[in-house]
Amino acid sequence: MARHHEPSATREPLFTDLYELAMVGAYGAAGMRASAVFELFVRRLPRARGFLVAAGLEQALAYLEALRFDAADLRELERTGKVSRAVRAELENLRFTGDVDAVPEGTLVFEDEPIVQIVAPIAEAQIVETRLMNVIHFQTLVASTAARAVLAAPGKLLVDFGARRAHGFEAGVLAARASYLAGFSGTSAVLAGVRFGIPLYGTMAHSFVEAHDDELEAFRNFARANPNDAALLIDTYDTERGATNVVALAREGIRARSVRIDSGDLAEHARRVRKILDEGGLHDCTIFASGGLDELALRDLVRGGAPIDGFGVGTRLDTSADAPYLDCAYKLEEYAGRPRRKRSEGKATWPGRKQVYRLHATDGAHGVMKSDVVTLAGDVEPSAQHEPLLVPVMRAGRRLARPESLELVRERVAAGLASLPAHLRSLEVSPRYPVRIASHLEALASELDAAILNR
Amino acid sequence: MARHHEPSATREPLFTDLYELAMVGAYGAAGMRASAVFELFVRRLPRARGFLVAAGLEQALAYLEALRFDAADLRELERTGKVSRAVRAELENLRFTGDVDAVPEGTLVFEDEPIVQIVAPIAEAQIVETRLMNVIHFQTLVASTAARAVLAAPGKLLVDFGARRAHGFEAGVLAARASYLAGFSGTSAVLAGVRFGIPLYGTMAHSFVEAHDDELEAFRNFARANPNDAALLIDTYDTERGATNVVALAREGIRARSVRIDSGDLAEHARRVRKILDEGGLHDCTIFASGGLDELALRDLVRGGAPIDGFGVGTRLDTSADAPYLDCAYKLEEYAGRPRRKRSEGKATWPGRKQVYRLHATDGAHGVMKSDVVTLAGDVEPSAQHEPLLVPVMRAGRRLARPESLELVRERVAAGLASLPAHLRSLEVSPRYPVRIASHLEALASELDAAILNR
Repeated sequence: MARHHEPSATREPLFTDLYELAMVGAYGAAGMRASAVFELFVRRLPRARGFLVAAGLEQALAYLEALRFDAADLRELERTGKVSRAVRAELENLRFTGDVDAVPEGTLVFEDEPIVQIVAPIAEAQIVETRLMNVIHFQTLVASTAARAVLAAPGKLLVDFGARRAHGFEAGVLAARASYLAGFSGTSAVLAGVRFGIPLYGTMAHSFVEAHDDELEAFRNFARANPNDAALLIDTYDTERGATNVVALAREGIRARSVRIDSGDLAEHARRVRKILDEGGLHDCTIFASGGLDELALRDLVRGGAPIDGFGVGTRLDTSADAPYLDCAYKLEEYAGRPRRKRSEGKATWPGRKQVYRLHATDGAHGVMKSDVVTLAGDVEPSAQHEPLLVPVMRAGRRLARPESLELVRERVAAGLASLPAHLRSLEVSPRYPVRIASHLEALASELDAAILNR
Repeated sequence: MARHHEPSATREPLFTDLYELAMVGAYGAAGMRASAVFELFVRRLPRARGFLVAAGLEQALAYLEALRFDAADLRELERTGKVSRAVRAELENLRFTGDVDAVPEGTLVFEDEPIVQIVAPIAEAQIVETRLMNVIHFQTLVASTAARAVLAAPGKLLVDFGARRAHGFEAGVLAARASYLAGFSGTSAVLAGVRFGIPLYGTMAHSFVEAHDDELEAFRNFARANPNDAALLIDTYDTERGATNVVALAREGIRARSVRIDSGDLAEHARRVRKILDEGGLHDCTIFASGGLDELALRDLVRGGAPIDGFGVGTRLDTSADAPYLDCAYKLEEYAGRPRRKRSEGKATWPGRKQVYRLHATDGAHGVMKSDVVTLAGDVEPSAQHEPLLVPVMRAGRRLARPESLELVRERVAAGLASLPAHLRSLEVSPRYPVRIASHLEALASELDAAILNR
């Protein structure tokens, strides 16, 4: 039971599955060092998702650039008793020297569309599977959920509140990033502000009110310590009485920036609280709501005209509670220049190195997305109107450009959402967005099947 | 957009919500430095959970012991523009100097039962909220889900395969820990083996087979590189043909330890594969199954008598897909020696510092759990048969004992599962396990309500 009391795990290279190491050893022993093409894609979208927002590429590229097993890592691997000397020898000099094409972060993607494409000596491309999937899967998951909240509550302040119930430390930080790039206004997670420059928002907790013998006194103490910036939580005992206390505080000359309601019928409380605040002359004091919210609840509150200016969305965002995972895969599509195909029941893959083209309708200022086609990378573009989604981002293990700013990614998401077919902008998922498999690709798959069966 | 290209976040102290910092500043400004009691508990169990397995205390205690904001942290906070000088001054010397009582990891717990109880100066007890909840919530979530899988497949080899679709890096590592302490045999996540000494298991991926022109050649290369330990994945093209290739390999003198089936009707394929292996004389070669499994699928496969020796459980375990979060809370129950209560609609708390007692029936070798009672900490034990669940684990910021071994925690879980009422051992959740609120506690809550309303 070594090293029980260490803080959070930090060595990314060791974040891999044991079979990746076993395969690296076996590829080496068999002298298989040719180039492989792996693609990361989502096989099927969750029932309640009409589109996905690609995210996590930045962390994936940082991981690939930094990949190396240092002496301490190799010793740790030896200690597990499950990693042979031959495998450790392979790992000792392993670096990621390959190429990466990818859809830029914030691009809308659909089933069967490669999000990241790795071309590298097979051991390098194999060993990165676990972490690549882990970091892209999660951010894509949360960005996709967050984008639905953005669509449901246009113009509202949306803040990620989920760190406490996110699945661990990194999930809390990366959920803040993924929701911000999808269009959220910011997060309560301090470390996400520190690390990514994401705007930070915060109110107060029930404990602050409870620790005082009197709610008004609690409001007074909080507002004095946070001048001009206090968001007061008013539902600890009785929401409307809390609002009345906010008005009383204003009569003392201490004005709150906003109030937060965290329980009960949010629409009904917001209406009553708005009336109390307005009658008290606090027209500028905004109302912020939280408590078990998701995009469907936001939509209903917005449609119902609840006088709520902003929402804290927490647990159901950071855990993507209605669809907590994507059916994503990272699959070998080509080795040593020849296309490869897995035929497992229900999990067959499209072979070969691919490209995705997107066709926009040209009516209107924003061309609406019409359909995508997945085809082989070498194919001619279907037409000049077809935009290729996969672009080169890394060559020979080095990035081709500096990291994109999150602001740029936010603009890309906003443009993507604006160009979605209307029904997909309204949170409906039916009919599905059309993704066509090119006839070349279908022909190649049939050809490989025949070859496999005749072997 | 500072520090875009850093690897995973590692500074736990900054993993907090902005409002915790605002409150620390406000407590300080108001001179509120008295002792507070906070309790972490689950308000309601998810619909599909009849019990929870407490987990994550070890990481929580390590966090509390190490808590400090160093000069670099304070500079980072300053840069966000959201943390005042007064707050930074409070943080500069902040350490966790408090006491912790907790239920030991692996204890079965139910709604309203404190899992962790913090007694500390209020700022210290407040600021740790986010990370305490984050690390205990997630491990308790996964350990509870894993325990159901253990109950569903007694005597089977159960391996955590979920790292790739866990929600980030830490979730992958801690899900391995949580499932192991709940009774899993091990994990594929190498870092969990390195960090916690958890047994590592691995097979091979489809890519290894695909990279070869011939499946038999792939099996040969893998088995040679992993002598006496090869688990061969046989469903890349055709499961039964894969099994036949395993028999062919044995005729060459190369024996596989086991085969893995990852798609299709697992029970049906397992029966056919078992027959092929047995007819080839490979009675010792075990069958391992994976692919979208959860505890209900395990139960059905086991009940149906499928000849499967072990299971890889991945995504649906690490994301606890059918219940991806718990309705947990961390609430102030006492400040400056006086009990406190939140009355928010649907979220009212039981006030005061508490203890939980468990009554076992004394019939049989293992006493079956009969009922729990939640009461005030100072109360007399209901009877000599009642076992108190919360025990002291930290005093004045220092642990009272060395970290428990995971083996000990595993034994505690096993004993707990053995003493569950029979219906809860069978994955049924109805009727609910009885948790009674002591009359003292109900009386105290009513008293506080009256005081709040009359204020």
